[in-house]
Amino acid sequence: VTFTTDFGTTDWFAGTLEGVIATISPGTRVIPITHEIPPQDVRAGAFALAAAYRYFPLGTIHVAIVDPGVGSTRKAIAVQTRRFVFIGPDNGVLSWALRTEEVQEIREITNRRFFLSEVSRTFHGRDVFAPVAAHLLRGIQFREVGPEHENILKLRWPEPIPGQGMISGEIIYIDRYGNCVTNIPSGSLPSKVRAIQVGSRSVPIKNSYAAAESGAALCVPGSHGYLELAVNGGSAERRFRLKVGSSVTLS
Amino acid sequence: VTFTTDFGTTDWFAGTLEGVIATISPGTRVIPITHEIPPQDVRAGAFALAAAYRYFPLGTIHVAIVDPGVGSTRKAIAVQTRRFVFIGPDNGVLSWALRTEEVQEIREITNRRFFLSEVSRTFHGRDVFAPVAAHLLRGIQFREVGPEHENILKLRWPEPIPGQGMISGEIIYIDRYGNCVTNIPSGSLPSKVRAIQVGSRSVPIKNSYAAAESGAALCVPGSHGYLELAVNGGSAERRFRLKVGSSVTLS
Amino acid sequence: VTFTTDFGTTDWFAGTLEGVIATISPGTRVIPITHEIPPQDVRAGAFALAAAYRYFPLGTIHVAIVDPGVGSTRKAIAVQTRRFVFIGPDNGVLSWALRTEEVQEIREITNRRFFLSEVSRTFHGRDVFAPVAAHLLRGIQFREVGPEHENILKLRWPEPIPGQGMISGEIIYIDRYGNCVTNIPSGSLPSKVRAIQVGSRSVPIKNSYAAAESGAALCVPGSHGYLELAVNGGSAERRFRLKVGSSVTLS
Repeated sequence: VTFTTDFGTTDWFAGTLEGVIATISPGTRVIPITHEIPPQDVRAGAFALAAAYRYFPLGTIHVAIVDPGVGSTRKAIAVQTRRFVFIGPDNGVLSWALRTEEVQEIREITNRRFFLSEVSRTFHGRDVFAPVAAHLLRGIQFREVGPEHENILKLRWPEPIPGQGMISGEIIYIDRYGNCVTNIPSGSLPSKVRAIQVGSRSVPIKNSYAAAESGAALCVPGSHGYLELAVNGGSAERRFRLKVGSSVTLS
Repeated sequence: VTFTTDFGTTDWFAGTLEGVIATISPGTRVIPITHEIPPQDVRAGAFALAAAYRYFPLGTIHVAIVDPGVGSTRKAIAVQTRRFVFIGPDNGVLSWALRTEEVQEIREITNRRFFLSEVSRTFHGRDVFAPVAAHLLRGIQFREVGPEHENILKLRWPEPIPGQGMISGEIIYIDRYGNCVTNIPSGSLPSKVRAIQVGSRSVPIKNSYAAAESGAALCVPGSHGYLELAVNGGSAERRFRLKVGSSVTLS
Repeated sequence: VTFTTDFGTTDWFAGTLEGVIATISPGTRVIPITHEIPPQDVRAGAFALAAAYRYFPLGTIHVAIVDPGVGSTRKAIAVQTRRFVFIGPDNGVLSWALRTEEVQEIREITNRRFFLSEVSRTFHGRDVFAPVAAHLLRGIQFREVGPEHENILKLRWPEPIPGQGMISGEIIYIDRYGNCVTNIPSGSLPSKVRAIQVGSRSVPIKNSYAAAESGAALCVPGSHGYLELAVNGGSAERRFRLKVGSSVTLS
């Protein structure tokens, strides 16, 4: 089972999830993808899960919890795909990973038999999501978690917009190095394109960070499949004052 | 075995603890509750352990190391309760978890046979606490760790103070979201109480974060069993400039 | 297998490494030494690995990835010593750990059979280092990873410089508490030396942090074998405005 959450690692939240799993399903291995999604940033959680989920063993249960609506009427869902199971709140945090998965069955999580006996209104990670994942790992049937569910909430995926000899894109994720990931797939790059525009500046496209001089900006095909702005030995986020949503253009 | 420490994860300290456990007791599973207690903040460590420890399998050994007195004459202790074992320095870091446990036996950790062969004066986590935990997991008798010990050091638990139609409490922990946990048990709340006073402001009591408007302050029964001040989508710590020890009043 | 990297834990990088290991070599235990080496700080990674590696079970594979040159012509290497295997880029990040190991065989990692099928130019941790480690754990021969390699790149280890009745040293690592580790081995300390000079100030040598008054500066034999400047309950880094490379003198 993996976790992608905004619980952080400074409090006891992340550790408690693992305790709940170990209590219900002792042999299960727990791997955090990350617990440090910025608080309540559902899009960042969706992107991190989408970038990482395919590198885990078949049958892995991926639990993603970035859940500003905990305790409200937002639903909890479990999604069976051909290769994995995804569990989380129905607020879109799973939806970018599911874009590239073959969905087989979606259920709303309602069966309290698989929750902890006392369910708080503020920590469904501990009281609902982790125990349901652990029970699935112990072998309950997928259909037991609750009734079928349709029309899960999907986050809009910002497709790049083709124009007159150009493609308009935007920044969708910024990593710890300050590398800025765009929504432009690396594979879609016409071979004659040599640079990407960021505001009034032109940034050359290279094959690797180290292909630029130290301190120089560059654009590389990132490990997630999208073009990524970087500064060799520095931060593209600071150099270009970029934010998630900032525009970039290929021309 | 779990760890609750202030070692952080930026250096090699936390990883080394796991290496020591894996060397002495290869099959043991290690779950960090957190390694990011603020440096030398014994009370924060005590609260995190108390909030998390019960969510682990019976028999778990909980090691808590927030240890400003490492290398001094402070004692190291092991505490057997009906359900768990607790290990740490005798400076109160274990004492808030033990408030809700049935203590069976307390021993001072002195038997150097279970320490690493060289014991530093600055890293007893690696040289004393982790190896003793690992030897217990491998099956040594609890009494072998050292002589019986009485009167362990207890941190004062700040009980809320009832007054004329009111209860005075204080903030005891602030989490990564800026939620401020009080010392007032959620269960003790008279049903007619609808708000908590923070300085001159009145904050309504709600059932969940999402029950307040975005940006609004609220008070919720927290997942740890205490009332908690929060701001939906924001930080109560910043909104009300709260610190651990700040006063709040139910009236 | 252990990891010492600068990937951080805020993105999905660290979790993905564990997913790759679990996919290829399901039974393997993964222990991060740390993923929070400051970005691209090869020396800090080298020091952390050197301080921690010996506390792991014999046969552990230590993977260290602080790799500003990823995607360039820098080589990837695997080093078999009498007790462990070390894997990483050939940029010196392994070299301080290898100072105290008996090296038996060094190979350049070139055999793409053990890489992921698609190798990015920016994330060799996922695509090269983790899968090669996992295949070694599954039992491939060490020589299969690639051809023999000589003259690995070594980081200069800054030896302390003896002078007229004095030893000149420098700060080589600063930890999360602000403790400043020097390059002067604790064991080499003449017993009559009672203090270390930091700029114009003299800092007494003590046995433990707690042996100094609260708020007082001191110098202790650190758990890594080197003298370390500390402030009891505070930060030597801030008190003395020290950086890696700052000078200190024993006289």
